[in-house]
Amino acid sequence: MPTISRKGELMPQSPIRKLVPYAEQAVKDGKSIYYLNIGQPDIKTPEVALKAVRENTVEILSYSKSEGSEVYREKIAAYYEKHDIHVSETDIVVTTGASEALLFVFGSIMDPDDEVIICEPFYANYIAFSVASGVNVVPIVSKIEDNFALPSIEAFEKLITPKTKAILICNPGNPTGYLYSKEEIQKLTAIVKKHDLFLIADEVYREFIYDGNEHYSIMHEEGLDEHAIMIDSVSKRYSMCGARVGCLVSKNKSVIKTVIKFAQARLSPPTYAQIASEAALDTPQSYFDDVIAEYIERRDTLIAELQKIEGIKVTKPKGAFYCVVELPIKNSDHFAQWLLEHFDVNGETVMVAPAGGFYSTPGLGLNQIRIAYVLNKESLIKAVNIIKEALKVYKD
Amino acid sequence: MPTISRKGELMPQSPIRKLVPYAEQAVKDGKSIYYLNIGQPDIKTPEVALKAVRENTVEILSYSKSEGSEVYREKIAAYYEKHDIHVSETDIVVTTGASEALLFVFGSIMDPDDEVIICEPFYANYIAFSVASGVNVVPIVSKIEDNFALPSIEAFEKLITPKTKAILICNPGNPTGYLYSKEEIQKLTAIVKKHDLFLIADEVYREFIYDGNEHYSIMHEEGLDEHAIMIDSVSKRYSMCGARVGCLVSKNKSVIKTVIKFAQARLSPPTYAQIASEAALDTPQSYFDDVIAEYIERRDTLIAELQKIEGIKVTKPKGAFYCVVELPIKNSDHFAQWLLEHFDVNGETVMVAPAGGFYSTPGLGLNQIRIAYVLNKESLIKAVNIIKEALKVYKD
Repeated sequence: MPTISRKGELMPQSPIRKLVPYAEQAVKDGKSIYYLNIGQPDIKTPEVALKAVRENTVEILSYSKSEGSEVYREKIAAYYEKHDIHVSETDIVVTTGASEALLFVFGSIMDPDDEVIICEPFYANYIAFSVASGVNVVPIVSKIEDNFALPSIEAFEKLITPKTKAILICNPGNPTGYLYSKEEIQKLTAIVKKHDLFLIADEVYREFIYDGNEHYSIMHEEGLDEHAIMIDSVSKRYSMCGARVGCLVSKNKSVIKTVIKFAQARLSPPTYAQIASEAALDTPQSYFDDVIAEYIERRDTLIAELQKIEGIKVTKPKGAFYCVVELPIKNSDHFAQWLLEHFDVNGETVMVAPAGGFYSTPGLGLNQIRIAYVLNKESLIKAVNIIKEALKVYKD
Repeated sequence: MPTISRKGELMPQSPIRKLVPYAEQAVKDGKSIYYLNIGQPDIKTPEVALKAVRENTVEILSYSKSEGSEVYREKIAAYYEKHDIHVSETDIVVTTGASEALLFVFGSIMDPDDEVIICEPFYANYIAFSVASGVNVVPIVSKIEDNFALPSIEAFEKLITPKTKAILICNPGNPTGYLYSKEEIQKLTAIVKKHDLFLIADEVYREFIYDGNEHYSIMHEEGLDEHAIMIDSVSKRYSMCGARVGCLVSKNKSVIKTVIKFAQARLSPPTYAQIASEAALDTPQSYFDDVIAEYIERRDTLIAELQKIEGIKVTKPKGAFYCVVELPIKNSDHFAQWLLEHFDVNGETVMVAPAGGFYSTPGLGLNQIRIAYVLNKESLIKAVNIIKEALKVYKD
């Protein structure tokens, strides 16, 4: 019998997906579940985007341009201009989600066994994209005690080898909710320029910034044109996760030229989703104001409720809609599964993401979970209460 | 300045895309172009699919299941059942086009430097997917003189090494239009079983079979369950190239389990496109009857017209909507560019695909072009006439 590849064996299964069968069984058993485990917001997609698809006049659903339609890329450039990021449509390649953008970037700048340094905890699928590309993730630890701030320059420099090709950040961060300051981005700038590396920034949560903070993009940094590659997506911004439209942005012409070759090989990004995404750029500001207000309320509720639980550690996220919570337990994989299998309060339980999958250093994050505050305030209060009650009876 | 990867350098640019600037210039210069270069049919997408998207009631465009919705996969299985292919929804993973299906398969069964044997001429992007996956294409030549029939078992066995993991066929073939017979599939079966290889069949043109021939799928072969991986797509079948929905089908549980890990990493296939694809399965048979009749007429016209040209070689395709034509020239890259830059008949010219890009053996196919008969009969007659006139004055 022919066998699968080593790459296929190494490909991690998402820590969340492992729990799915237990969640399905819990539902079959009549339990209700508060899903805090996945970044699928309950926020409605902007009507302007939905309407554009409903009213589309396509008769032949044909390929679009591999790099995305020129009109759409021009509109994306105009969107960035409003955020003080000056790029043209030729600096942008439209992709099938941020996932594909990352795969194209990894393929374009790294060969097998090359290394990318990523601050952990990080978005779990970065590992999967690395495995698919045959490259190695070198983790650098950011700590809950430090609010997940950027590690020191010295810590980065200790990890840089001739095989290091890039540093990858997620800003604001999934799963941490941490927002890098201008000073932190400038530190990274100094490192990548000194060591001739690429700086990849996954900025898909750029619109979700709270408390009057401002997002400082890597694209704001002067002199970083040849190094900076920004990853973006419509998924979270417009609650359009199912569109599967993202993009990558870089002023480095060789990178764009190479990425377009990868893009041409897969022909084009999805056409209907580009219709929705292009229209979504006309979403009124009031939509975002409402969404941000909603997330701030949810975050404040969540953090306040969590802080009432004895023995837990949590930091207030400045952006995105996740937080990492340290629990007085030994193994959050086991705890998350146990919640679904064996615990409920009046027939209700909670699904959380064990944080171990967001680390690549073995043993880290095992007492942490990630909570996505993608549910309304009332649900969050109930969900945290379930965790609180669970911790009273849970035994590792 | 950080540099791109070797993989990025090796990634081929599509032979067609190289011509695009010349085509754009020709249009700017006021010429009309008959586009025979790309498999984008002018056939309308079935109304049932378009309607489903126009009438969708999505309010939150959320992720779908990574492997595709259960309902959609069940409907795909029912579609195959009608073609005497017996699979269940758990044997199917929905992908973002056949392109992604091939990338997932390559990643799941091959590691860097592993080898896949492909009959050339082949679909040019197979090379791109191989480069992206870090694996090597080992070409085996099929000849226009033999109608592009399957090479002998001996020819295959000469190429099999410990690194060989799979044989990949496209059936019916792009760019050849060749349809493998049951006997040829059985030959392949014998080889992959003897040498413990996977047999990957790209069957996206399965519906486009002419002259009363029948398509014999690798999924029809008994005893091949652990070896067979079928690739499929809605792109050509329903003239929905822009949907970006395909699938892969295998009874090999390890393959499916591994492919799902790749699928989970990129979250989900596009949601709107799945709505269209699911509805497309209700396309009435009359649609296909009309489409097939149209393609047969086009093919017959194309071949008859081509055969009037002195010094050319062409075989009558039994399936798909392409043919390879050998011309009395030295370099079809140059010829194709020259047609766009320097030749027209009453302001009209033709864009063809140079066939060199469909071969990986250097030097092969340089006097061949691929013609996609995706235009109506009248256009085809005019287009072939332009080629005929061009050959009278063209000098290598």
